[in-house]
Amino acid sequence: MKQYATLKDVAKLAGTTAATVSYVLNQKEGRYISDETRRKVLEAAKQLEYVKSIGASSLKGKSRKLIAILIPQFENQFFTRIIVASEEIFVKHGYDLIICNTLDKPEREKAILNRMIQQRVDGIILTPTKMGTENTKLLRKVGMKMVVVDRPLPGVKDFFWVATNNYGCGYLGANYLFSKGHRKVAYINWDSGIEDLEARKHAFFDAAESYGIPQGHLVVAEGGFSAEEGCQLTQKVLEEHPDITAIFYGFNIQALGGIKCLTERGVSIPDDLSVMIIGSPEWVMAGKNDFTHVDMNDLELGRKAASLLLSQIQQDDEVPFQHIIQDCSLVEGNSVRDIR
Amino acid sequence: MKQYATLKDVAKLAGTTAATVSYVLNQKEGRYISDETRRKVLEAAKQLEYVKSIGASSLKGKSRKLIAILIPQFENQFFTRIIVASEEIFVKHGYDLIICNTLDKPEREKAILNRMIQQRVDGIILTPTKMGTENTKLLRKVGMKMVVVDRPLPGVKDFFWVATNNYGCGYLGANYLFSKGHRKVAYINWDSGIEDLEARKHAFFDAAESYGIPQGHLVVAEGGFSAEEGCQLTQKVLEEHPDITAIFYGFNIQALGGIKCLTERGVSIPDDLSVMIIGSPEWVMAGKNDFTHVDMNDLELGRKAASLLLSQIQQDDEVPFQHIIQDCSLVEGNSVRDIR
Repeated sequence: MKQYATLKDVAKLAGTTAATVSYVLNQKEGRYISDETRRKVLEAAKQLEYVKSIGASSLKGKSRKLIAILIPQFENQFFTRIIVASEEIFVKHGYDLIICNTLDKPEREKAILNRMIQQRVDGIILTPTKMGTENTKLLRKVGMKMVVVDRPLPGVKDFFWVATNNYGCGYLGANYLFSKGHRKVAYINWDSGIEDLEARKHAFFDAAESYGIPQGHLVVAEGGFSAEEGCQLTQKVLEEHPDITAIFYGFNIQALGGIKCLTERGVSIPDDLSVMIIGSPEWVMAGKNDFTHVDMNDLELGRKAASLLLSQIQQDDEVPFQHIIQDCSLVEGNSVRDIR
Repeated sequence: MKQYATLKDVAKLAGTTAATVSYVLNQKEGRYISDETRRKVLEAAKQLEYVKSIGASSLKGKSRKLIAILIPQFENQFFTRIIVASEEIFVKHGYDLIICNTLDKPEREKAILNRMIQQRVDGIILTPTKMGTENTKLLRKVGMKMVVVDRPLPGVKDFFWVATNNYGCGYLGANYLFSKGHRKVAYINWDSGIEDLEARKHAFFDAAESYGIPQGHLVVAEGGFSAEEGCQLTQKVLEEHPDITAIFYGFNIQALGGIKCLTERGVSIPDDLSVMIIGSPEWVMAGKNDFTHVDMNDLELGRKAASLLLSQIQQDDEVPFQHIIQDCSLVEGNSVRDIR
């Protein structure tokens, strides 16, 4: 197997020592090296196409120029956009990005985080699983630079966090439906067990209350995070509550399956039923689709997380912990009928 | 700033040398170490929560357990799916994945590849830019494990390649349109300058010829790789050739913009105009959309590329170069009208 040229190879060809080669190639000062030796080293390095290893530098406490990002779902465009937006910023600053999919499994998260310590990454962006607080214990102890995205670390205060105002998102969508006259509305929810995400549902109830809508008019159907579940929950809701006028999907993957099923059943949106979605995957506005939805500004979340991590890495002074909670915006399409 | 414990820290606490600690922790054999020393080392490592650095091992010629993937467009689900599918396979085998976006810019590709050599990655998956052959010269010379995905390296034979049968994809889509009676058809093309992608257009003409359709019936509109261009090309085609009955989009990003414009103009698909797309981003089948399209089996491409790279990395013997060309499949929706 062919190999890269090492410092030693360059030294051998130049007839000098590895230490001298390192001095010349890293342009260090403080030691006299003759022009003749310098010339020989540079020539040898060029001839052998020597490229230095970052790993070697990192052993001496230098930066590895590597960032890791741990994301729980790759099939969710919300997270791939966070990756894309942060990659752009990291690369501008000379950092490469390792991406990892935890699949929302705590034991996988734990294993990946351990591997990232082994890789001596300079920092980590993490959307934690349910066990995130436990799994990041060592990282927080050794002072690994870290930004938590989207979901928090329950029970911990001292961490950098960039998140969506989930309550605000839920309120925005629910309020829009009620403002258009809808009173019998179903909310389709992911039973994630993640408290922060439940805020969307609470906001739905609070918005209803502000319109004086009795709880009995509201339907909540909860299930797993998949398009299939979204379809089943939608069918269940339609069968058990045929009088609803609108469905509010709290999670876009469930919406994807739910709306497919509505279409297959011949339900016309918004003539027969109005639809609101939290999230802005490409499909909600693509082709014939023009769904009214709540945009979480995914790319901006990724940019903020990356910038916050870089500010920790690049500053010598300790940066105080920050929680950045980003608001959503409502994008009006044609999927909600005004029935006032 | 807090730091990870080093071998030296462990040695100090255990009252022994770094060499001994390395012996114990890496379970090397061939040197006598007393049970007492072994116990002290293990206890010290545990107390300091020592996690070894992969970088340190990699300097001794061991694997870095890092793979890099270079992709030209992150906004294209075709490529994010290749990333997702390959990540799954690499992680199973203990490798982490660095993702990089070349933005299809040759100078950026060159800089990233150089950085990946510095990172001493174990292998690279690459969709090359126009200058890919030139930019991979050093990699090929030093025998970097590499799999080229999607586009080839022009002028080079000796490389591992996993690609789509672009001619076959084009033929499949065009043939379907002609089989449904369409004769005046426009093909919307990305003027990429990448020969392999032009095969889709050639297949369009060949399929037409097999139906005896005169060249004069066919329209080709070419432009940049963006939704905006897709919209402009679509409008141009409709204005200059109002008698066409179908549009064949060779690239899904152009289709995204083109179909949005059709919808905004009030063109009903397939009643007024039939539409065929190469590519299967989520949106083509989501919500109200049900577009007939050519599926390139993106995930399978990613899996094949990852497996091919691993087979190179994990085998000591030299693996012979392979070109794997994967066929497409046609997915029937309701966007093509039968006008026979």
